[in-house]
Amino acid sequence: MSSRATFAEISPSEFFYRNRDLAGFTNPARALYMAVRELAENSMDAAELAGTPPDVYVRIIPEGDNPDLPDPKPYRLTVIDNGPGVAPQHVPSAFGKVFYGSKYVLRQSRGMFGLGGTMAILYGQITTNKPVTVTTSPDGKRKYSFQMIIDIGENRPSVLKRFASDADGTTGTRVDLTLEGDYLRSSQKIADYFKQTALVASYANLTFVDPTGQVTFYERATTSMPAAPKETLPHPYGIDVEAFKRIVKSSEEHDMKSFMVTHFHRVGEKIATKFLEFAGVSPRLPPKRLNNVQIVSIVDALQRFPDFLQPDAAVLSPVGEEILLAGVNKELQPEFATVVTRPPSSYSGFPFLVEVAVAYGGKVLQPGMRLFRFANRIPLLYDESSDVSFEVLTEGVDWRRYHVPPEAPVGVITHICSTRIPYKTVGKEYIADRPEIEREIKNASREALRRLGIFLSRKGNMEAVQRKINIYGKYLPLIARFSKELAGEKKLPPYRKLIGEGDTVTEASPGGEQEGGGVLTGEDGPDQGREQEAAEIEQKKIDEFGGS
Amino acid sequence: MSSRATFAEISPSEFFYRNRDLAGFTNPARALYMAVRELAENSMDAAELAGTPPDVYVRIIPEGDNPDLPDPKPYRLTVIDNGPGVAPQHVPSAFGKVFYGSKYVLRQSRGMFGLGGTMAILYGQITTNKPVTVTTSPDGKRKYSFQMIIDIGENRPSVLKRFASDADGTTGTRVDLTLEGDYLRSSQKIADYFKQTALVASYANLTFVDPTGQVTFYERATTSMPAAPKETLPHPYGIDVEAFKRIVKSSEEHDMKSFMVTHFHRVGEKIATKFLEFAGVSPRLPPKRLNNVQIVSIVDALQRFPDFLQPDAAVLSPVGEEILLAGVNKELQPEFATVVTRPPSSYSGFPFLVEVAVAYGGKVLQPGMRLFRFANRIPLLYDESSDVSFEVLTEGVDWRRYHVPPEAPVGVITHICSTRIPYKTVGKEYIADRPEIEREIKNASREALRRLGIFLSRKGNMEAVQRKINIYGKYLPLIARFSKELAGEKKLPPYRKLIGEGDTVTEASPGGEQEGGGVLTGEDGPDQGREQEAAEIEQKKIDEFGGS
Repeated sequence: MSSRATFAEISPSEFFYRNRDLAGFTNPARALYMAVRELAENSMDAAELAGTPPDVYVRIIPEGDNPDLPDPKPYRLTVIDNGPGVAPQHVPSAFGKVFYGSKYVLRQSRGMFGLGGTMAILYGQITTNKPVTVTTSPDGKRKYSFQMIIDIGENRPSVLKRFASDADGTTGTRVDLTLEGDYLRSSQKIADYFKQTALVASYANLTFVDPTGQVTFYERATTSMPAAPKETLPHPYGIDVEAFKRIVKSSEEHDMKSFMVTHFHRVGEKIATKFLEFAGVSPRLPPKRLNNVQIVSIVDALQRFPDFLQPDAAVLSPVGEEILLAGVNKELQPEFATVVTRPPSSYSGFPFLVEVAVAYGGKVLQPGMRLFRFANRIPLLYDESSDVSFEVLTEGVDWRRYHVPPEAPVGVITHICSTRIPYKTVGKEYIADRPEIEREIKNASREALRRLGIFLSRKGNMEAVQRKINIYGKYLPLIARFSKELAGEKKLPPYRKLIGEGDTVTEASPGGEQEGGGVLTGEDGPDQGREQEAAEIEQKKIDEFGGS
Repeated sequence: MSSRATFAEISPSEFFYRNRDLAGFTNPARALYMAVRELAENSMDAAELAGTPPDVYVRIIPEGDNPDLPDPKPYRLTVIDNGPGVAPQHVPSAFGKVFYGSKYVLRQSRGMFGLGGTMAILYGQITTNKPVTVTTSPDGKRKYSFQMIIDIGENRPSVLKRFASDADGTTGTRVDLTLEGDYLRSSQKIADYFKQTALVASYANLTFVDPTGQVTFYERATTSMPAAPKETLPHPYGIDVEAFKRIVKSSEEHDMKSFMVTHFHRVGEKIATKFLEFAGVSPRLPPKRLNNVQIVSIVDALQRFPDFLQPDAAVLSPVGEEILLAGVNKELQPEFATVVTRPPSSYSGFPFLVEVAVAYGGKVLQPGMRLFRFANRIPLLYDESSDVSFEVLTEGVDWRRYHVPPEAPVGVITHICSTRIPYKTVGKEYIADRPEIEREIKNASREALRRLGIFLSRKGNMEAVQRKINIYGKYLPLIARFSKELAGEKKLPPYRKLIGEGDTVTEASPGGEQEGGGVLTGEDGPDQGREQEAAEIEQKKIDEFGGS
C-alpha cells in the first residue's frame, strides 16, 4: 500500500505538450482558432515593429484526398506576412523551441509569452505527425525554407530539410502547417477575430480564405501607422528584489547615480540624486558593492519614494480616441458614443494605459451590456466572465448611479495596452485583476458612463419638453383664440413661435393634434451639438412660459 | 524607425517569474490563498500516496515587529504534514526548480503541474527576499532542513544552509516561507477552501490557524481511507504519434504483441492479438523496427479499434456516492439530494470519472443554482463561469425539460477525477471543455436533474392531492351528513379514511377547514421512501374516488 513519490524533470516543450489546454489548444475547434490568431499576431507584430503597415494573408484548406470528410479533420494552415523576416539562423529555435523568442523584452506587442507560434506547430505535429515548413526572407533577395519537427523531450527543433532560393524582392515570413481542426465549430470565432482585429488595426490589410475558398478582405483604411511601440526600461515603482539584483549584475556603471539614470524608466540626474538621498545611499557607491541588506532597503525605498514620474505614454501605443470612435461608429452605429482615455499608469514596473468606449442605442446593440475586450490591439473572445473588465463592469461599477438602467442597449469597449499584459492564461483569453488595472478600468468606465448618463438625462429632459410642447401645441391655439375674442382683437397673438412653428399666423383648429416643434424631432438621432441647441431652446421656452 | 526583433531564451523559472499571473499569483490576496492551497495539496497528496490518513497543519502569522500593519503585508506561512517525507537529496530541486517534481506520472493527484509549491516559494522570495526553509524526515529518525532561495535565471535551487538533527519518530515535511499577502481580502476564500476540502476528504485532519491565532479544526470523520490512487499505463484511445514514439523508444520488448500488453492500459494478449490484426501489423514485429508510416498507421488504428476496454475505475479514486451524499446532507441540509456516478471514460488516453450531486431546497440553498466544483478532491473556488461544469449546467442542459424552474433552490456538486485534469490555468482554477468531459458532466447532470424533476413532480402531485384532499375534507363531511339525513341513517358513512383521518366517526363541522391527511404532511421533508408511499396512497385515493 505504501508508495513513495518518484521525482523527474521535464522540458518546457514537454510541459506544454502535456498541458496544451493551458495554451488554449483544448479541442480541434479551439486549436484551429488559436493557431490562426497566434500566427497572425506574430505577423502583425513583426510588420509593426519594422514600421511597415501589416499585410497578412491567412488561408485554411482541408488536407488530404477527401475534403468533404466531417470535422474534426486535418487542415492546412498558411500564414504569410510582409514583415521584416527572420534571420535564418534564428528560424529553427524561434519556431521549434519553447521559451525561445523575440517577445522577452519590455515592449508593447500582441505576443507576450513567445510561445504561441511554437504551440501551434507543436499541436499540428502531435495531431497529424506532419512537419511544419517556415519560409522567410529578411532581405528580399534570398529566401530560406526550413522543414522541421520539434523534439519535445529535448525542447529543440529538428530540421528535416533546409533550402534557399531567390526571393521576389519582398521581405516576410510564411508558415505552412497541418493540424487537426474543427472549422465548423470555430468559423464564427475566427470571423469575429478578423472583424474585431480590423476594428482596432485599421492600417492593416487582412485577407482570410476559408476552407470553402471564400475570401474575406479587410482593406486598410489608412496607411498612417501609429508610432511603433518602443522597448523601454523598467519603471522604478514595483521593481522587486529579484529584478533589482539582476540589473545590478548586468550593470557596468561605477556609481549609483549613473546606475539609476541608465537602468530605470524616466529617472534623470535630478530624480536619481533625490532618490538616493531619500534611500540613504551615497550617489558615488559602486552598484556592485551593494550587499543584500542594502538592496532590500533600496527596493523598499523604490516603492515609497513619492517623486518618480509616471511612465511615459510614448512607449505605449494606444488605439487613440479618433480611431476607436471611428471603429465604434462603423461597427455598432450607436445613437451615442464616447471614448475615455486614461493617463498612463503602471503596475509592478510595467506601464499600461486603459481606453474605454461606451456606445448606446442604435440598431446593432441589443438590450443589456455587450462587452468588447481588447489588449494590445488584439480582441479577446473567450472566457469573458473571468476578465478584469467584465468584473469591473458587472460588479465594480454601480450603473444606477449614472442613471443607466441595466437593460439599456450599451456596448462597452475596453482596450488595455501595456509592455506586459497580465494575462491569466497562456492562451491570452483574459486579464488578471491586478488592482492598478482594475482601478484604471473602473475610473475610465465611470467617466464614460457618467457621460452616457448625462446624455440619457438630456434625452429624458428633451422627451419631457417634447411632451410639454405637445400639450402647449394643443391648448395654446385655444387660449390664443379665446384671448383674441375676449380682447376683441382681430389678430391672434404670435404664439406659434413658442411651439416651434413658423410665425405665419393662421387659425388652428382647436382640437387638432399638433406635431412637435421642428428642432426637437428628427428620426436620425440627436448628436451632442444638436442636443445642446435643443436644451437651450428648451430653457428659453420655459423662461418664456414662466416655468411650469 | 525600422527595428528588428532580438531573440533570447529564458528559463522555466524566469517564465513563471515574469508571468506569475498564469499560476494564480496575481495579487497579495490571491497569492496568499494560492500558497496555502498549493502547499496543503502537496501535503495531502503525499500522505494519501503513502496510505496515511492526512494530518495537515497550516498557520499564517504576520511577519515582522508590527503585526497591526494594514494589509498587504509580509506573512509567515507554515505547512506541516504527516506524509512520508522527501528523500533529502531531492529536497532542493523538488522545492526550488520549476518543472522538477513527482507529479509527472499518470496518477490521480491534487497536484498536476509539479509547479505550485515552487511558485509559492518563488513568490515569497520575490516579494520579501527571504529564503524558504524546508524540513523533512523520511524515516522518522533523522530530519533534514534546507534554507534556500531559487536562482531564477538559472532555474536551480541555491541552498544557503543545511542541517540535520534527530526526528521525533514521525515522518513528514514542514515548509516555512515568508510572502507578501493580504489576509483581509483572502480570508473568506481560505475558509471556504478548508471547509470544502473537508467535505470531500472526510478522512483527513485539517488544522488552520489564522493570523489572529484563531484555530479551525476539521477532525476526520473516518480513518478508512479510499484506496490510494495507482499509477497507470496510458489508455490506447487517444494516444498521439508523439506519445507512441516515446513508448517505442523506451520499450525493451522484442515483439509487438508483448509491447502492446506491457505498455497500454487494459490490453491483454487477446485484445493485443485482435488489435494487431485490425491494424495489419505482425504480432512478431520488433517495435524498434517500426518506421514512421507504420507508426502513424498504428496510431490511427488505435483511435478506430472498437474493442479496447474502457479504463479501469480502479486507478481512479472518486469520492463515492455515500461520502458525497453525507457531505451534501451535512453542508447543504437539502430537502432532496441525489448522486450520479458515471462509469469511467477517457479523453486523450487519460481515464476520468464524473460524479454529480444535485441538492434541492432546505434552509441553506437560496433560489437559483449554486455550483460547487471539485477536481481530484480539491475545491475550485475561482473563475467559475469559465469552467466546463458551469458551461454545461447553464447552457448544455435544458432545465425546463426536467421541470426544474430556474429559480428553484438547487445546489449542484460536480467532481471530476482523473489521472490528468485538463485545467485551463496553471493555478488550477477551472477545467477545459474537453468534449468527452463535457459529455460526461452533461449525462450525469441530466440524470440527476431528471431525478430531481421526478421528485418535484411528485411533490407537485402531492401538493395537488393535498389541495384535493383539502376540498374533499371540506365537502365530504357535508355530503356525508346530507346523505345520512336523506337515507334516514343514524351513523355517518365511513368517509374519514378517505381524507386521511382516523376512522373514528365524529361529526365534522361543515364549514371547518380541515388539516391535510397525516401521511402527507410532516415539516421535516419527505424522503424518497415516504414520497413513494405517499404516491401510492395518492393513486389509491384517486382510484377510490373514481378519478377527478
